[in-house]
Order: sequence, then C-alpha cells, then structure tokens
Amino acid sequence: MRWTHALIPTLRETPAEAEIISHQLLLRAGLIRKLTGGLYIFLPLGLRALRKVEQIVREEMDRAGALEVLMPALQPPEIWKQSGRYETAQDVLFKVADHAKKEWVLGPTHEEVITTLVAGEISSHRQVPRNFYQIQTKFRDEIRPRFGLMRAKEFIMKDAYSFDATDEAAQASYQKMYEAYQRIFARCGLKAVPVEADTGVMGGKFSHEFMVPAETGENEVAYCDHSDYAANVEKAISQLPALPASGEEASLTPEKFATPGVATIESLAKAPYSVAPERQIKTLVYLVEGKLVLALLRGDHQLNETKLAAVLGTATFRPAEPAEILEAMGAHPGSLGAVQFDKLPVYADVALRGVTGMTTGANQDGFHYRHVAIERDIKVTRWVEIRTVKAGEACPRCGHPLKIQRAIEVGHVFKLGIKYSQALNAMFLDENGKKTPLVMGCYGIGVTRTMQAIIEQSHDKDGIIWPVSTAPYTVCLTPLNVAGASPTLKLAEQLYQELTAKGVDVILDDRDERPGVKFKDSELIGFPIRIGIGEKSLAKGEVEIKPRAGALLAVKTADAVAKVMELIAAGKS
Amino acid sequence: MRWTHALIPTLRETPAEAEIISHQLLLRAGLIRKLTGGLYIFLPLGLRALRKVEQIVREEMDRAGALEVLMPALQPPEIWKQSGRYETAQDVLFKVADHAKKEWVLGPTHEEVITTLVAGEISSHRQVPRNFYQIQTKFRDEIRPRFGLMRAKEFIMKDAYSFDATDEAAQASYQKMYEAYQRIFARCGLKAVPVEADTGVMGGKFSHEFMVPAETGENEVAYCDHSDYAANVEKAISQLPALPASGEEASLTPEKFATPGVATIESLAKAPYSVAPERQIKTLVYLVEGKLVLALLRGDHQLNETKLAAVLGTATFRPAEPAEILEAMGAHPGSLGAVQFDKLPVYADVALRGVTGMTTGANQDGFHYRHVAIERDIKVTRWVEIRTVKAGEACPRCGHPLKIQRAIEVGHVFKLGIKYSQALNAMFLDENGKKTPLVMGCYGIGVTRTMQAIIEQSHDKDGIIWPVSTAPYTVCLTPLNVAGASPTLKLAEQLYQELTAKGVDVILDDRDERPGVKFKDSELIGFPIRIGIGEKSLAKGEVEIKPRAGALLAVKTADAVAKVMELIAAGKS
Repeated sequence: MRWTHALIPTLRETPAEAEIISHQLLLRAGLIRKLTGGLYIFLPLGLRALRKVEQIVREEMDRAGALEVLMPALQPPEIWKQSGRYETAQDVLFKVADHAKKEWVLGPTHEEVITTLVAGEISSHRQVPRNFYQIQTKFRDEIRPRFGLMRAKEFIMKDAYSFDATDEAAQASYQKMYEAYQRIFARCGLKAVPVEADTGVMGGKFSHEFMVPAETGENEVAYCDHSDYAANVEKAISQLPALPASGEEASLTPEKFATPGVATIESLAKAPYSVAPERQIKTLVYLVEGKLVLALLRGDHQLNETKLAAVLGTATFRPAEPAEILEAMGAHPGSLGAVQFDKLPVYADVALRGVTGMTTGANQDGFHYRHVAIERDIKVTRWVEIRTVKAGEACPRCGHPLKIQRAIEVGHVFKLGIKYSQALNAMFLDENGKKTPLVMGCYGIGVTRTMQAIIEQSHDKDGIIWPVSTAPYTVCLTPLNVAGASPTLKLAEQLYQELTAKGVDVILDDRDERPGVKFKDSELIGFPIRIGIGEKSLAKGEVEIKPRAGALLAVKTADAVAKVMELIAAGKS
Repeated sequence: MRWTHALIPTLRETPAEAEIISHQLLLRAGLIRKLTGGLYIFLPLGLRALRKVEQIVREEMDRAGALEVLMPALQPPEIWKQSGRYETAQDVLFKVADHAKKEWVLGPTHEEVITTLVAGEISSHRQVPRNFYQIQTKFRDEIRPRFGLMRAKEFIMKDAYSFDATDEAAQASYQKMYEAYQRIFARCGLKAVPVEADTGVMGGKFSHEFMVPAETGENEVAYCDHSDYAANVEKAISQLPALPASGEEASLTPEKFATPGVATIESLAKAPYSVAPERQIKTLVYLVEGKLVLALLRGDHQLNETKLAAVLGTATFRPAEPAEILEAMGAHPGSLGAVQFDKLPVYADVALRGVTGMTTGANQDGFHYRHVAIERDIKVTRWVEIRTVKAGEACPRCGHPLKIQRAIEVGHVFKLGIKYSQALNAMFLDENGKKTPLVMGCYGIGVTRTMQAIIEQSHDKDGIIWPVSTAPYTVCLTPLNVAGASPTLKLAEQLYQELTAKGVDVILDDRDERPGVKFKDSELIGFPIRIGIGEKSLAKGEVEIKPRAGALLAVKTADAVAKVMELIAAGKS
C-alpha cells in the first residue's frame, strides 16, 4: 500500500471526546472515526488491525475444534421470552419495530439463537460434543457509551457455544476454550490474566474472565502474588479474621441510646459515641422483585451487588427509596436495624456470624442499640457472602495480602449448564435412550475491545506500539526523497517488492513531506518496523531500520530484508 | 475437515418453506437454516461458501484500488433526514428506539454515513479520487421476505462509494467498478450480464445492474441478441412503429356513444364495439404527493411505475382510489378520459403522439368518445416515456426483436452525482480554490444473494454444482470403508494430507455409511471433485475421481493428487 493512496488521517491534537489513551490513539492514528456516541467507523488501517485480531481468534477457535457459523443480529423476541432474558436483559436490548408492527430484538448475544438451532439439529449423544462460534456484530443499548470501542452500542464479538452430553464433557469443552483463549491473547501480544468471575443470574455454574490490567479498566481484580488466586472483585473472597472479642459481659442485652443527628457509620464512630465501624452493623434495604429485604454487613464492609444478585437469584432489585423504608421500618436510613425485627427477610453477611457487642440502628430516628449479639438478638433468615473484599485482606488460598488492580475484560468463558437447553428444548437421547438436556458452555471475546486493549497496554508517549501479529502494516518504508527517479524512492520500491513477496504487509510512505512528519506519523500509528532510506546513509550503502520499541540499526542495504525477517520472527515468538 | 466433526445436516426431503430450487438446495445441502421468516443462520458449509464469495469480492475491490472500511449498522436518523431519504426510504427502514427514547435506523445502505465521514476527512482535490467499500450486514424491512437469501430482512452486501473531483473522473471510477464487477462474477463462476438500469428517485445519473438470468428472478430484462442492448424492463425502451393511419376523416370530432357495462380495454375490443386495443386511450389516475394526475397510454400498453417515478421525480405515489377518482372525474374507472378535461395534469405516453381516430372514456359511466385526435382534443401537460416494452418490439439500437428474460440482480453500479455530497456537505476545494461538491458513485453487490444465485444457475437434479472458486470444500474424499485400519481410510488420510499441503480445501467423509448415502450427500452439496476410494479399485492400484459435472475417472493412486490439481486448475480458468 502506498501512503498517498490510503486514507490515514492522523491528528496532531488529542480529540476532546477521548478520555483514555487508547481511545485517543485510535483517533489520532487515523484508525477509527466517531459517527456518533458509541458508534464508530473503522478506517482502512483500523480495519486491518481488527481483521488481524479476528483472524487470530478464528485460527485458534478452529484449532480447538469449534465450527464457525453466522447467526442473524435481528432475533425474534419469542425465544428471549422462552429463556426469560426478555425481562432480565431488557436494559441492554435494542428493540426494533417493523412495518407490520412486529417486534424484534437486536442481539447482544446469541444463546437463544444457537440453542434454537441445536434443538432442531442435534438429537443424539453421538452428535456431541459440538462447539459453534461466530465473529459477528453485536448491539447493546448502552446509556453511557464511552472509552471508544471499549463500551460501544455496536461492537464485534466472537461468541462460542458448546454442547455436551455430560457435565464432565462440558468441563472438558470449557477447558479447551480456556486454553484457546490463553493462546489467542498471547498471540495478540496481550497480557490477559484469567480470573474467577461471577456467574450471576445467567444461571451458570462457574466462569473465568480474561482481564487486561489497566488503570482505565472498568473492572477490579483481586489477586495474590503468592498463590495464583485471582478473581473479579464481584466474586473475590478473602480469609477474614474474626472480630476480637468485644470484652462485654454476655449478660448485657440490647440497650437503646440516643444518637441525635447520627445517620452514618462515620458519625457513630466519632466522639462522643466512638463506636468503631467494625463493631457496627450496617442495615441496608433493597426492593427485590417488589418485596423489601434487609442486607446486614459489618460497618466497615461494603455490599457487593453482584454477590447479592447471585444470592437473590435475580438482578431485578434496587436500593429501597427512603419513603419505602420509612413505611416498612418506622425510621429513616441511618437509624435502621434488625434487632427483634421479623417483618422482612434478613440476609446477613457471614462476616457477622457470632459477633457480639455490636451497635446498630433502633428503627427509631436518632436512636441506636448497643450490646447487640447478632445470633441472639437478630433473626437472620440466611447467612450469605455479600461483601466486597478489600486490598490487604488475606488471600483465601495462602493468606498473603490480596492486591486489587483495575482491568479491562477482553474475554469470558462460562459454564452454563442446562439453563438454556432446558428452556429452549435442546434435548438429546443419551446412551440409554433417555431424553436429556444438553450441557452448555458459552465463550465470548470482545474483538473490537481486544484491539483497543492492545493499544491501552502497548504504547508510549509517541504513539501505539503494535505487536507484529496485529499491526495494520508490519513495515513502514520511509524514503526521505520521493521525487520521481530518486535513488531513495527506487530502493524503497525494490524493498517493497521483496518484502511483499515474502508475505510481509508493507506500507510505503510516498508522501512529499519532511522526514520529521513521516517519522512522527509512523511512530504515532506504531508500525513495528520502520525502514528509513535517506541519501546520506544510502551513500554508505545502508538503510536505517528502526523497530518501534527498539534502537535504530544501520543495516547494509543488501541485508535489509533479512534483518526485517529476523525482527519479525523475533516479534512473533 | 472430517465429516463427522462438521455439522452437515443434509435433508432427503424438500422443505415446504422453499419455493425455488436454490433455496431448496441451500436447505437440503445443510448450508443454511431458517431462524424465522427472512432471517437465516449460516451453517459451517454455507459460511465457507459465503466467505469465498466475500474474498473474491474483496480481492477485486482491492485490485481496483478501493479501500476497505467498516461502518456501523446503527445510524442516526438525522443524516437520513439531511439526505431526504428518511421519507423516501421509509418503507424499508427498520427503526430502533433506545432506552433514552432516541431513535436510530438500521442501515439498508450507507451513502449517508460514508458521505458524513468524507465531509470530515476530504477537503482538497489532491485527496481524490477515493473509493471506500465495506462488506457488511444490511437490514431491510421486507414485508414479504422470500426465496431464502434472495430477499431477506438481514443480508450481507459489499457496498462501495467513490468520490471524485469532476464528472469525467467519476465516470472513470464508475468504469473501474463496472470492470471489477465483471471480474468478480466471472470468478464466482456466474454468468451475470450488465444491463442498463433505472436511476429512479435516487437522483443518480446512470446505472447498470448485473443480472443473472433465471426464471425465478424478480427482475425482467429486455435484451437484443443482435446488438448488445440489454436493459431492465423498468428502464428499457424500444423502437415502436407509429400506428397506421386510422382512415377516419380529419373532420370527425369526438362523438359520445353508449357502452353500457364496458369497463375494460378488452370488453371494448369485443363486438359490438370492436375497438382494437391500440386504438383505445387508457386513462389512469395516480395520487402523487397528495395531488391527482392522469397518465394516458395506448390501450395495448402497460404503465411502468418505475418510469413514472422517474418522470414525476418522486416515488411517493399510488393509484387513486375509486372514490377519489369519482369525485375528481365524475365517473368510475373504465369510463375515464381526458377529452376537453383540464382539471388535472395530463401525462401522455409518447406512443400516443399524433394519434387520431382513437376511442376513450367520456367521464360518464357507460359512455365513451370516438373520433378522438389526441393533439386536438386532449390538453397534454407533458409527453413522457412511461410504458413497459414488450418482447418482440424492435431493439432501440438495431431494430431486431427484443427478448425478455427474468433475472436475479446481483450487483448494481450507480453514478450518483452530487445529490448526497451536496445534502451532507461533502465539499472540496478545487484547483482554483473553489468549494465544490464531490461527485459520487455507489456500487453494490448482494454477497449472500450472489452465493444463492450461483446455486440457482448451477445445479442439476442431484444437487448443487459448485464452481471451484466458491465451493465450501473443493474435494470430498470418500473412503468406502472407514473401519480403523482399513486401507481405504489409510489412503484417504494420506491424500487428505497431500492435498491439504497443496492448499486444497478437503473434506474427508469418515462416516460409517453406505457408499450410496455418501455419494448422494456429496452430490447434493456439490463438491467439485469427489475421490472415491473403494477396496475393489484399490486392488487395481486405482481411485475413482468424479468431477461433480463430469464423468468418473479411474486414476492410478500415485497420480491422484496430480489429477486433482489439474482438474482444479481447469475449473479455475
């Protein structure tokens, strides 16, 4: 490709619309352009990088034995109603009305479609295991699209769905995908760490997310340097030491005391009350599918709504409104408690188990109880794991302190079980002739997001540093003089032919621009290898080879191609 | 690929849902499955064929210098309002509402998006010519989706858009695409004929459609075997001999006569009236953007609504309702005429120019006028070309009789001019520094439709006959005995390795099925070459090579690979 023929609208300035570096670089390097919020056009160079990521994904899915298919983006709502997700996923479902007033949904994912297909095509244990994947455009009604391709209304995903006869076979399919994902991200030059993930309300059994550590990531991962424990904080647990004994006599019973104006954990922790947060019981009220429930936590702990959803078995809940709370409890938030309270179900975090000498709201504005012993004074409906771990807490495996790191989720493997096959009737006859639901797994990679994550992880102050495997072009040939018959252009043309013949993707910067402009653009876009061809070095029979992330090399003209091939081989390994 | 690993659900029976042979074969060969009306899932083999068509399209577009991009399917309605197509294209536009109550459209095409992009990126004559293309999923609100992939709600198109500084340059861009299209369809093994096409209300200058002759096609093409004239009947013209003189005396003036119960051309042609259709004037009433107009044609001619749209400059019209007609004209359809009628605009087809001795309705139920001389008795607002040519009429170029043939439109090249660049402000500074709209062309190929058209054109009673270039697999290896260590399976494995190493796409039918079943499936799917490996021929040191459309060849085992490569080379030429 000749630069003057391509469309590479690099920008000197950082567009105001872009908050994070990878989004800025996508725009500045002329890889994408915004059509409108959350919708992007891939320009030629951006599309080339995207296609390379796609091709790596495809090759590794094929290698893992998955079969590529292509499903429609438009889907009938009926199958979403059958699976139950017409309700539970409604926040992200774009709905389409046709002229016949029939409704459609735009697929954010394809469990319903593939399971419908499989229900019609697979009926015997001899036809499984099967794993189907597609690389296809998804739609998500993002109210706040942001960070460029990271959270867009329309994006490209690789989604795969495995079907097995038994749980053990499904586990093997899961493991294959887990390993394929490790290869995929490694080939993309991406450091992506598998972490334990929430299975939430999808009804799945377990799952891992592949996380790219990045300060701008929308996820938090708790991990331990010592053991190999790593989990999304939505799922992470820790070993929490029991509270020290309160020192109170066991005969003390709940005593109400006035706390005028105290409505937070922090204010009760101050004088004159001085109740340490860990000795307080925090009482939260949630409206869950129309009914109120209480969630109790230690005062120094934070509720994890993802864990709460898993406990409740539904994501359809929200914090109750003050008016709803007042009506049910007789007090405002800040004075709530569950002592001797049996009107609502009480879910208590396991960190509260057995605690005594606690303080909590008295369900009367301006009053609290002290000397509360939870198992004696509060009727706990269910002990649950609903708090968020904090950095420094002990690793559940080895006890060393956990660290917490922000990260970008680029992939997700998920053991689904039989939720969808049961709902959509994907049954098979097992070896005994018994009709049984297929055991499913699903496996996603955000392809457009992965492309951006590579940039987020690999750049410097001058621009992107593409790995060889996903660079739009591997080599940028930069003759410094492009006048008609200049020897620099002539050599560039010759190297272009030789490298192209060896299967290398080359762009020839044939612009009549100053060397500084050309070098800056080449670094901004981040081609792995630049070959500078100037008259001075040419007089010495040399060209200048500059790996994007390495030092400039003066190389004999005759050795240039071999040197490039060597650098590429090193970059690919 | 091993057959047992793939998913190839061939069907013995013809599914009732499929009317045309290509649709039947797509289903029977296990290439696609219906999700719901107008929405299809590509199964692994169907997707392979589709990808091969895509790749041919991509290579030829690249070769023609076009740049691949990727635009979103979701589009903001604002740009459709700017171009005016929010109204004119509303019948096919799917509309999407998000949770913030904002409306989006699902793109059936991308003129608005690409022109918006170009408006931001191209500003100088030095940046053109440029041609951008994408291979992308389109959406069309088809009320009556049918014929499988031919007319679906969701389909894959290659759409390209050229931008030039001058009309001549735009003409050159058009010509490049025209030639690229000829190469594309030829490489797909498809006989696709370029025909002149209507430019309709798109505001374009001229266009060609690429048509695949097929009885099941939704288009009609008029063509001449003698000259190279070929045009969509929506656009086609002919040389029409003038009506013979009526023989009536010129002094005769319109005379009303009773025609009780006569309301059609045919009934007036019968005794006792016996007015030949060509001596009748047919009067049609249309409601055009809220106003009625009359369209006059010779009684033996048919109105062409596409031509009428071009004449009217709008596609927003419909035949008037009987009540509307009665109110405006004082009579019902069948008794209408324009003699001495000046309340509505009269568009008369040029075939009526100068005719005398005509009969037409009298605007009074049960009465007609005879002795009508059109130029004397009817106030024609505009003479227009609005009739549909018929087979047997004279070619406009050479006078030989035209033929009419049904056809499938697989591609369309269109010189747009400045309609979109003006509306969406895609301007550039010309060599004199003057701000000027870019001259555009647009170029579409229905990729999924092309894939099906190949089948519609190339099949026999046993199934599909894929050309080598687009077959899901080129070679089907068919060992007749697949037991563990059988010599037939062993040889099949060996040939599989050898052919794969040469870059040939091979499927190995490792099913434990009767040879008849295997052969039938292989023919149904239509792999170009089958290699049968049976014990009997193996004993003679031979395999049986069966080109899908040729005779069976007994070939020495050692020569098998060479023979296959020879057949492939012949198939590709």
